[in-house]
This record gives sequence, structure tokens and C-alpha cells, in this order.
Amino acid sequence: MELLRTLCQIPAPAGNEAALTQFLLNYIQTASPGWQTQPTVLAGEQWQDCIILVFGQPRTAVFAHLDSIGFTVRYGRQLVRIGGPVLDEGIRLVGRDSQGEIDCTLGSDEETGQPTYEFTRDIDRGTELTYYCDFRETDTTVQSCYLDNRLGVWNALRLCETLQDGIIVFSCWEEHGGGSVAYLAKHIYETYGVRQALISDITWVTEGVHAGQGVAISLRDSLIPRRSYVERIRRIAEAAGIPHQLEVEGSGGSDAKELQHGAQPWDWCFIGAPEDNVHSPDEIVDKRDIASMLALYQELMRQL
Amino acid sequence: MELLRTLCQIPAPAGNEAALTQFLLNYIQTASPGWQTQPTVLAGEQWQDCIILVFGQPRTAVFAHLDSIGFTVRYGRQLVRIGGPVLDEGIRLVGRDSQGEIDCTLGSDEETGQPTYEFTRDIDRGTELTYYCDFRETDTTVQSCYLDNRLGVWNALRLCETLQDGIIVFSCWEEHGGGSVAYLAKHIYETYGVRQALISDITWVTEGVHAGQGVAISLRDSLIPRRSYVERIRRIAEAAGIPHQLEVEGSGGSDAKELQHGAQPWDWCFIGAPEDNVHSPDEIVDKRDIASMLALYQELMRQL
Amino acid sequence: MELLRTLCQIPAPAGNEAALTQFLLNYIQTASPGWQTQPTVLAGEQWQDCIILVFGQPRTAVFAHLDSIGFTVRYGRQLVRIGGPVLDEGIRLVGRDSQGEIDCTLGSDEETGQPTYEFTRDIDRGTELTYYCDFRETDTTVQSCYLDNRLGVWNALRLCETLQDGIIVFSCWEEHGGGSVAYLAKHIYETYGVRQALISDITWVTEGVHAGQGVAISLRDSLIPRRSYVERIRRIAEAAGIPHQLEVEGSGGSDAKELQHGAQPWDWCFIGAPEDNVHSPDEIVDKRDIASMLALYQELMRQL
Repeated sequence: MELLRTLCQIPAPAGNEAALTQFLLNYIQTASPGWQTQPTVLAGEQWQDCIILVFGQPRTAVFAHLDSIGFTVRYGRQLVRIGGPVLDEGIRLVGRDSQGEIDCTLGSDEETGQPTYEFTRDIDRGTELTYYCDFRETDTTVQSCYLDNRLGVWNALRLCETLQDGIIVFSCWEEHGGGSVAYLAKHIYETYGVRQALISDITWVTEGVHAGQGVAISLRDSLIPRRSYVERIRRIAEAAGIPHQLEVEGSGGSDAKELQHGAQPWDWCFIGAPEDNVHSPDEIVDKRDIASMLALYQELMRQL
Repeated sequence: MELLRTLCQIPAPAGNEAALTQFLLNYIQTASPGWQTQPTVLAGEQWQDCIILVFGQPRTAVFAHLDSIGFTVRYGRQLVRIGGPVLDEGIRLVGRDSQGEIDCTLGSDEETGQPTYEFTRDIDRGTELTYYCDFRETDTTVQSCYLDNRLGVWNALRLCETLQDGIIVFSCWEEHGGGSVAYLAKHIYETYGVRQALISDITWVTEGVHAGQGVAISLRDSLIPRRSYVERIRRIAEAAGIPHQLEVEGSGGSDAKELQHGAQPWDWCFIGAPEDNVHSPDEIVDKRDIASMLALYQELMRQL
Repeated sequence: MELLRTLCQIPAPAGNEAALTQFLLNYIQTASPGWQTQPTVLAGEQWQDCIILVFGQPRTAVFAHLDSIGFTVRYGRQLVRIGGPVLDEGIRLVGRDSQGEIDCTLGSDEETGQPTYEFTRDIDRGTELTYYCDFRETDTTVQSCYLDNRLGVWNALRLCETLQDGIIVFSCWEEHGGGSVAYLAKHIYETYGVRQALISDITWVTEGVHAGQGVAISLRDSLIPRRSYVERIRRIAEAAGIPHQLEVEGSGGSDAKELQHGAQPWDWCFIGAPEDNVHSPDEIVDKRDIASMLALYQELMRQL
């Protein structure tokens, strides 16, 4: 899991994904000669900090968001949230401003309860802070900040190794309301006629979805995908004998929001390993669920 | 009102409208030879479960959503809402899962207040439940679940009988955040240059809008349509002497949300009969308001 | 500031911007012969009540919204909000209905706390009311209702005088959820390849942004612009020595919402003078901040 560890350690809060994008472009250049099929790589200013990889004759696109939650430094010691991070006091935050490296801790304002930082000096207004990455691996689990969604990115990169026909999309801003999938989806639909999507992202361990029991196929979250598409996916997963769990939620969202609301008739399904300690520095995922996630994506990209 | 009764009885919760779509396609095939003008029918996978009917040289499009509110079975006895259904305990819910037909009642969790079901057995995770349809007709009223929006669909179908120039759209997902009008509207604007819309949907009886006093022309709800378009519609309704009421709300929405926020300059107006007992199994509408709704649509499609 | 005074006095609540649009078209026709570059003017039904001005070979587009907050008359004495107006009782409201001119005051319902009007007669359902404009100018400040965003419009018009390459957009509905920028942005991107935007709008005086200390460059509000674009803007402002302040907020929005969520890869940045008494009849702005706003826009349109 060295690749995953590296992915988790690169700061990429929503709106400033450039460092992770650059890492991925380098990785793709280095690794792709070993892939079964050579993709066309779409990247550059026209795509902001997103990347699209097109393999063969695509029928389905996989979306994995690059960005993470975090904080923006406001005035005084105030922090403003990027996405929905856990706010426990004492969490270690890192960043960089005009005066150099920052390694501080998360506090909270006594009056407002809003997040603050505690540090030896003032931090430049507008500086982004992210969780310090303490990557921990055991025989059965990986644990780190930002498994959501570096694990989804990792899944997509591993999928590239054997993918013959399909599209892999690395998107931005997912944790903070979205902002890239609308144009990515438009281009993909208009150029390749593809309107089937899989969302390679991480979900929650709940009373109905348990660690170690397989990748979760989400039947719905705050949005409801088209039933007939989700049923096709369920049948493929069952026929292939890949361990999986069915998830039903009334809240939560993903890159699928932009597919659902965009001006193309996308069918989509969220499929991802469940994690505990969501949006904290201690996100933890069972390795069996990572394995079944990759296996299911491989199968689906062949059959859908 | 046999057609309306049939429409109300077909389950079509948001995301799973396929059964109603299939019924409509059959109905259109059977009925359209009797219509004054033969439409072009756009349907199939590219349109998910939506249908577009194009008559003559269209200038205006009518949007009627197919989907209804309902529930998704979660874990244990929990239900998750589809749209915003009334949650009164004891309401009869129906559906079907791998073990067969379901006829159960709505309950609520003692601790969380969230909706639950009461049934003789567990229901498969992800199963959709809808209100049991008890269709009641008197000389002056119709009453049933899902008059919102089967009455809007019925109005559109009746409008087809005499329509010469115009577009009729049957959309999906309206009760749960939308998801089809963006691409339907894009296609219609780009293909036919049409950017005038009427929303054939059902509204609320309130202190300002009364049953039996005519179809409601909405001047605004949570969104505000372009004033000059709504004024044209008011003038046509007045000149034609069709009973109508002016509605002003600060909340509520419709398929118009996607028109308002889409990437085409749509003018739109919500025009529909008011109902009482909204989003319950006992939605009730005055037949005079149904008559004036259809009459106004016929007039507007001629004059706009 | 006679032009600004005139702009503030023309009612243009969201959805009914037509009077202001007409004034601007007349102004542009009269004033543009004196501008350094003659723009192409896009206006008319296809653009609803929006206007696009295209100068030379554009690389960047400036968005200034025409509409304001206000009220819609509901039933009885009830008012429904347009956008988020201040609701202090006694505020003077003006409008016009079938019975003539209206000059009334804002009240509030004793039971619901919702806004009402107090007037000598009933007002027609659906009538729009706006703040009475009491424009006040001193050596150092301007004060009026609707400086948000007539000052942003004024800034855009003054910018036109010397603009060589760029696009100026006057948009609608910004105060009430948007509705025009999606199609304006689509046209601009597809026709001119422009995907850099500046939002010419007014922001808030806060603990971190003070009147008189220069135009505010927003690093984020409820949305987060792409970091690399905002950094370019900061560097240009610094190099040019134009007084400015950096703003960091967790709430608030602008026309940028539609750029961020639209199907084109727009980079955007909100740049505007701060005002106090936001969304009240007494919005006040320091003239030095107006001067630095215009100076920064002139510089950015040359260099971006």
C-alpha cells in the first residue's frame, strides 16, 4: 500500500488539488507502459486540475475525486471549514504560508464554538490547513486521514492496470459542493457517448454496512439513482460471487450529484469500501473491502 | 376519469418510473391515432424513463412529472423518504420484493421519530414502498394518492388530443431533487429553439387559493419566474375568461427549478389545480379546477 | 456619482429587471461612442433581461448582477421575500399595481413574525415592492439601498470606458438563487473560449475587512475558487500597488455559484468594495474602496 500512503500524504484540499494532480500525472507517465491498454490522457488548463484517462472503446466512466476536506485560515485565529471535517480539539493540522511550514493544532472558539488554530505565530489569511497524515497499516486494515478519497483514487489507478475499455476521471471540489464533474461529464458524453458511471469513493460503516463484509453498493443516498441501472450492477456482483453489501441512506452525496443534475442522461451508482471514523485523521478501512472493491470494479468495467 | 384512476394506481416512485413510462408508451400508441395531430415520440434508453412528444411546429413545452413520493426500505424496520411524504402512522403501504407482494403499514421509530414499516416479515433492503391507492370519485371531486402528479400527466395527455403545435414532456425524479429536466430542456432548446415552458403540476389549497375557484397560475414559489412571461399568461387567461386564481408562495418547487438553473434561457410558469391533503393518500381536487386547468392549457398552447 | 444615483433608483427586483435593462441599453447606446473600444452588444429575448458586451479579443469576463432584493405581495397583508432583505419595521417600500403608485411601510405579523405591509389600501397580489431609494453622498461615502449591486454595475460601466479586450455581463436573478449565468457562461465559453471570470459585486464590512482599506479580493465564501487563479490575481494587485484586502468567508455567494457548478471549466474570483448595513436601505460604501475596485478591474482586465 505504498502508493496509497503516498496519496494520503499529499495535501489537496478542495480548490487546491494541483499537487496531487501533478503527482498523478507523473505516476501515470511512469506506470502506464506496464498497463494492458494505453490510455489517452486529457489534462491541462482546459481541465483545471482534473484528469481524464480514456481506454479503448469506453462504455462506462469511473469518477474518483482528488480533493479532501480541510480548513481555511480566516481572521485572528479563526478557521473556516473546507467540506465537513471532524472538529475534535487537539487534532494536528499542517500547511504552509509565506513564513514557512505550519504544524499546529485544532481548537475551538469559546463563544462561538467555531474552529480555531493554536500555533506559535499568526498564519497568513487564506492559508489552507489539512490533517497531519499518520498512515497506519496492519495485516487487516489501513488507517489514515483522507482514505476518503485517496482510496477511491487508488482503486481507480489499480483498475487502470488491466482496463481495456472505459474512462477514468479524477475530479475536484467534491468535498465542497462540486464544481468539475459537470463539465467533465458533458465532455465525456458528447465525445464518447458514455452515460454509465461508477463513483469510486468511500462510504460509512453503519448499522447496516459492516467492515470486512465487502464493498458497499449504494442503492441510494440523498439522491436516488435510476433503479434499473443499480439492479444490473447488483446482478453482476451476485453472479461474480464478489463479496458486497447493499447500502441504503437518506443523506450523503458524491460526485454523482453533478451527474444526476447535469444536462446528460447519466446512470450512476456509488460503489465503495466502508470506513469508520469518517472525515477524521483516523479513517479506517478493512483490507478485504478494498480487495472486493477493486474486484467488483474490474468485473463491472468488463460487463456493463 | 378512468384514465386518471389507472395512472394513480401504477407505482412510480422517483428513480423507478419505468412501469408508468411503459403504460404511457402503450397508451400513446393506442390513443394517438385519434389525436388531431400525430406527434413524434422520443423515448428509450437515451431518455432514461422520460418521454417527449413533439407536435407540429412547437413554440411552448409542457412539463409533467411522472414520479411520486414514497419510501425506501433501509435496515431493520427503517424507511427512508423518497421526496416529502406525509408520515401519519397506520397509512397503508404497498410494494414487492424477492419474497412477493407487500401490503404493510407506516409506523414511526419511538426514539428517532423516523418512519418505519409494520409487516409480518422483513422486507428486502432497498425495496420501494408507495401509498396504497384508494381512488375515490364524486360528482365534484377526485381523491387519491398521487394526484400530484398523475393529474398533471392526465392534463398533458388530454391536451394531446387537440394539440397542434407544442411539446409534451414526461419527466422523472421531480419529487426527489430532479434529474431529468436538465437534459430534456437542453435537447428541446437546441433542437426546436423552444424556450417557453408550462409546468403541468398540482399545487396547494391555501388561505389564498381555494378549491373550486379555478386553476392556479403561480406568480412565484421558492423561485421567481421572469415577470414579463407570467404577465403574458395572465392576460391570455383573463381575455379567455377561464376561471383562475393567482398564487404567491415563498416555498415549494417544481420541474421549473431545473429550467431556471439550466443553461438555456427558459421562461416558465407553474399552472395547476390546487389540492388539499398534499402528499398524503387522500389528496383531493375539485373537478372544476381540473376543467379550467385543461381549458387554460389548451388556450395557452394556441396563443403563446 | 449621478450615474450611480440613477442606477439605485430604478426598481429591478429579481425576476423583473426589465426597467434597469432598458436603462442600460439606452445608456450604452449614448455613452459607447466615447469609449475607447466599441463593443458588440448582445441583448433581446434570447437573453431574457441580460446584456453581454464583447470588447476586442476577450480573455476574461466580468459579471455584474442587475437585480436586487425586495418583496412580493402575497395574501392579506403578507409579504414574501425576494432574496434576503433586512426586515426592520417601518422601512419605506415602494411599488406600483393596477390602482397606481404605492408608498407603504414594512411591518411584521404578530404571530408568525413574517413580513407584512402597512398601507391605506390592499395591494394587488403578486406586486413587487422595493426599498424607497434615499441616495446620500458625502465627500467620503455613498449610501443608498441597492449599492449591492448597482455599484458593481457602475464599476462595470466605468470599466467599459477604457476596456480593450474583455466581456462585460449584466446578469439577472442573482439575489434569488440565480437563473441566467448558466446560459450566459455557456455562450461565452463556447463562442469566445473565455473561462476566466471576475465577479463585480459588493461584499461585507467584517472584523477582517474594513471600510476605506481597499477593494476586497475574496479568497473564498460558501464556495472555494481554484487557488491558482486567485493567486494570480493577488500577485497582480500587489505588483500594481492597488489598495486591497483579502477576504475569507464561510458563507455568502454570488454569480460565481453558477460558474462553479456550470458545465464549463470557469476560474472565478469575487472582487468588490465592502459595504456596511448590508441588504438594508442604508447600505454604505467608502469612496476609496470604489476607486480601488475600479482601478483593480482595469489592471486585471489588462493583465489576466
